[in-house]
Amino acid sequence: MTFAEMWAELLPVGRDERTGGYRRYSWTEADTACRAWFHRTSAALGMRAVCDPNGNLWSWWDAGSGPAVATGSHFDSVPDGGAFDGPLGVVSAFAAVAALREQGFRPRRPVAVAAFTEEEGARFGVACLGSRLLTGAIEPGSARRLSDSDGITLADAMSAAGLDPAAIGPDESLLARIGTYVELHVEQGSALDELGAAVGVGSAIWPHGRWRLDFTGRADHAGTTKLGDRRDPMLPFAATALAAREAAVGCGALATVGKVVAEPGGANAICSAVRAWLDARAPDEAILGRLVAQITAEATAAAAQQSVSLDITRESFSPEVSFDPELRERMSQLLGAPVLPTGAGHDAGVLASRVPAGMLFVRNPSGISHSPAEQASAADCAAGVSALAAVLADLAGQ
Amino acid sequence: MTFAEMWAELLPVGRDERTGGYRRYSWTEADTACRAWFHRTSAALGMRAVCDPNGNLWSWWDAGSGPAVATGSHFDSVPDGGAFDGPLGVVSAFAAVAALREQGFRPRRPVAVAAFTEEEGARFGVACLGSRLLTGAIEPGSARRLSDSDGITLADAMSAAGLDPAAIGPDESLLARIGTYVELHVEQGSALDELGAAVGVGSAIWPHGRWRLDFTGRADHAGTTKLGDRRDPMLPFAATALAAREAAVGCGALATVGKVVAEPGGANAICSAVRAWLDARAPDEAILGRLVAQITAEATAAAAQQSVSLDITRESFSPEVSFDPELRERMSQLLGAPVLPTGAGHDAGVLASRVPAGMLFVRNPSGISHSPAEQASAADCAAGVSALAAVLADLAGQ
Repeated sequence: MTFAEMWAELLPVGRDERTGGYRRYSWTEADTACRAWFHRTSAALGMRAVCDPNGNLWSWWDAGSGPAVATGSHFDSVPDGGAFDGPLGVVSAFAAVAALREQGFRPRRPVAVAAFTEEEGARFGVACLGSRLLTGAIEPGSARRLSDSDGITLADAMSAAGLDPAAIGPDESLLARIGTYVELHVEQGSALDELGAAVGVGSAIWPHGRWRLDFTGRADHAGTTKLGDRRDPMLPFAATALAAREAAVGCGALATVGKVVAEPGGANAICSAVRAWLDARAPDEAILGRLVAQITAEATAAAAQQSVSLDITRESFSPEVSFDPELRERMSQLLGAPVLPTGAGHDAGVLASRVPAGMLFVRNPSGISHSPAEQASAADCAAGVSALAAVLADLAGQ
Repeated sequence: MTFAEMWAELLPVGRDERTGGYRRYSWTEADTACRAWFHRTSAALGMRAVCDPNGNLWSWWDAGSGPAVATGSHFDSVPDGGAFDGPLGVVSAFAAVAALREQGFRPRRPVAVAAFTEEEGARFGVACLGSRLLTGAIEPGSARRLSDSDGITLADAMSAAGLDPAAIGPDESLLARIGTYVELHVEQGSALDELGAAVGVGSAIWPHGRWRLDFTGRADHAGTTKLGDRRDPMLPFAATALAAREAAVGCGALATVGKVVAEPGGANAICSAVRAWLDARAPDEAILGRLVAQITAEATAAAAQQSVSLDITRESFSPEVSFDPELRERMSQLLGAPVLPTGAGHDAGVLASRVPAGMLFVRNPSGISHSPAEQASAADCAAGVSALAAVLADLAGQ
């Protein structure tokens, strides 16, 4: 099976024909179809596929001995995400294994292809949920209670999919079997394009987190309530969205409000509440702390000015991750590839706390991500597969 | 049947137990239950109920001759609206008829109780839709194509309810049968409370309208896209929400953004689009024009600054309405009630273009509207019914 065949088979799954974007949320119909693809592809390559208790998929090339070399990524998408973010890493992993088999490569260690659950956090709100559960970075009880926008909990969704939610949580025996983890991912910026390189090696992930801001005011009639009598939560929300950008510019960091819900949301009624989510990232944790402190201070002042109350909840936080320096150096030398940091979180970043982990990036000439406009050329995808195959051969050939 | 009995029977219909607010949208299950209540109440009073081709309900006390005295309001609510806005006028109308019957009053003209469809515009986006169709203030073809948030058109919804959407539009023969229209409504501010009066008479409705603002940017990753490379529509939206308030203060007018939809709405993605609705009202049309021009100019500039495109659509517009001066004076003298303007639109304002129309307001001590917190005491409701009965006796006794 070639990369192109596997890719073409997976491509239509979960694509919205209207927007061209993907809506592959964990434990939905689209997710089930992706999982079926994983099992079929694994079987076609003569590998052994298993689903771990946290819902992550593993396809094993049972060979050699000792801890495995694992590679993979995720299937799930943000709302209207692109085709490459996640799936490119899973398809490239299988394609790299297929290439090694064709070359007659005989690994001295097991090789595994992984697909982690809910990397984007688009359904249950916590990014890298599958890898966090595996490594113990999230408490299983809290994870079970996470709920989607329809009020369905993770426990319910997993039960409906035939998994036992009581069994989720850290899995030391599985972690002990992973010697190294390498994730290939489409680049989410344009650094490789600017460098003229098809493939790069990840150095670090910026620390980042997600904060929920609940502005609570008072519902009222838009046509009869005097301005001075209003407690309109839309105003401090708007001030906060602008303050976030300004603070990010000042700190040399990133701050984004991409999700906002107005309640009750009538065009002729003042909102009772506005709920917004702040995504903030910075080169180091001190800068991130300053950034978030500045934004929340301005949000608090703006809310008080309109007699609106404000609750701020940190929904997720990922500390700075430096990928394994030895692995990074080895891959960079082997491939002659540039080394670059990223502001995006990845399962490799979560796994890095427990096993030597690294990343390969494939050039994205649009520089765009989390959008149907993200791209990678066929030639660059092939270069990514070759690079990953070379890395696997190097690591599993020792 | 007393006011309290009728009120108690209608009260639970369409109430959300979680918020205490109402979600009575036209042509939904809750609306059907309200319509059934109308038919039962009409029958209990020995009146004759009919649904006109536009979906408005009429209950006729066939008496006397000549054009009728009509009174009523609407059942539908904004999302999480209160119990009184609309239903108080319908229940009070039936209660006033019941009181007149008990008093042995013999009208010299027909008396009608009306309930208009989709006054709030909460489902199909056009306020006073039923009265606009009746008077020809909206073109039937455009009305049929109006669609709700699920893409269901008005034509589909009416067909599903057993009405013929091809039959909607101006109804001259029905209009010719209405000599006067008086709508009783809970006050949507606190003017009567400040004046210490239970009931007031409406003088005019401020001109007002609804504008939809579509900010279109480019979806991108919140963690990897440099600030300078972004086309984030959330920023000009936020600037516009703040500019609207500032312009309203400057003009002595009202401007509100109560509805906003972020697309695709992922917490870790820059939006591709933000759609927002501006509600603007002013004491006269010249001021309203200045207000909206100032807000749209600032929105346009803010969008351009972020390389975001902006489309502005006027979704509805209601010119200034002065209620019939003779009717207003007559009701005010009869009741010894104060006269006050309102910023809220009403079916009486739409009907005023074709028949002498007026309004009675009942005190709302909270001053709050379009919220479950709107109030009217039992004593003030009773005063409202007495005032309406006196007005009907006066107008139909001539």
